Amino acid sequence: MSSYNDPDIVLVEDNLNDAELAIRALSKGNPGKSILHLLDGEEALNYFFPKTNDTEQVRDKLPRIILLDLKLPKVDGFEVLQALKKNNITKLIPVIILSSSAEQKDVLYCYSHSVNSYIVKPVDFDSFSDTIASVGKYWLSFNQPIQDEPIV
Amino acid sequence: MSSYNDPDIVLVEDNLNDAELAIRALSKGNPGKSILHLLDGEEALNYFFPKTNDTEQVRDKLPRIILLDLKLPKVDGFEVLQALKKNNITKLIPVIILSSSAEQKDVLYCYSHSVNSYIVKPVDFDSFSDTIASVGKYWLSFNQPIQDEPIV
Repeated sequence: MSSYNDPDIVLVEDNLNDAELAIRALSKGNPGKSILHLLDGEEALNYFFPKTNDTEQVRDKLPRIILLDLKLPKVDGFEVLQALKKNNITKLIPVIILSSSAEQKDVLYCYSHSVNSYIVKPVDFDSFSDTIASVGKYWLSFNQPIQDEPIV
Repeated sequence: MSSYNDPDIVLVEDNLNDAELAIRALSKGNPGKSILHLLDGEEALNYFFPKTNDTEQVRDKLPRIILLDLKLPKVDGFEVLQALKKNNITKLIPVIILSSSAEQKDVLYCYSHSVNSYIVKPVDFDSFSDTIASVGKYWLSFNQPIQDEPIV
């Protein structure tokens, strides 16, 4: 886990190869945007739900988007998604699943738990890069984020 | 309201000018996809929640995506969003707000009620067309939909 304090993108991905490719594609398509890479679901829960009552501190760390793998060690992506969408602060951040699974039960689970978007990782290298770049561009250039002002 | 039975896109928009531009941009970027245009929130609620107990009939009419304006006559887009996301069947369909409002309270309301994405309509003609085309491409080409099989 790197030590970015205020990242634009949080990527939760245990596969180092996929993470490296994704970071390269995101950086190329969205120059200047900072990416925090977390390796598993436990790191994600610790990042978004630290043991502090300082909600201001939590808000300061919120990214513009969260890219979340599903099959993760320790705590899986389903549990992370559920936690993010149950919390009144983190539910405001778009969560985009990046998974190798196109299984109907996985897709259904995520939509049932208010995921914003579900992307199946293409196997082919070029398609993978193109898809991730398009995902980054859509969510960082077109989608309207919540502002940084305090949320009532 | 046209009589499409199984549209790919449902567009809820009262401004005929915006609707015409959006339909043109969507058709150009996503050839062969069918678009159903509904004029207000009441038409949207009647379409998605007809007075029938035949859930199969409701499922057959579900589009891949719903593009929803906020400031609508009769029933506004906030109410339509809330109804769509409270229902176990319609909550599985991505809802993308297309609004001229970038007001924080509107954006917050929508994210708090599980909107999938929020797009502020660009005022400029070319930007409007480009944005809508990108929105259509992202949600119809990259995002993984639920399948047409019966949902348990």
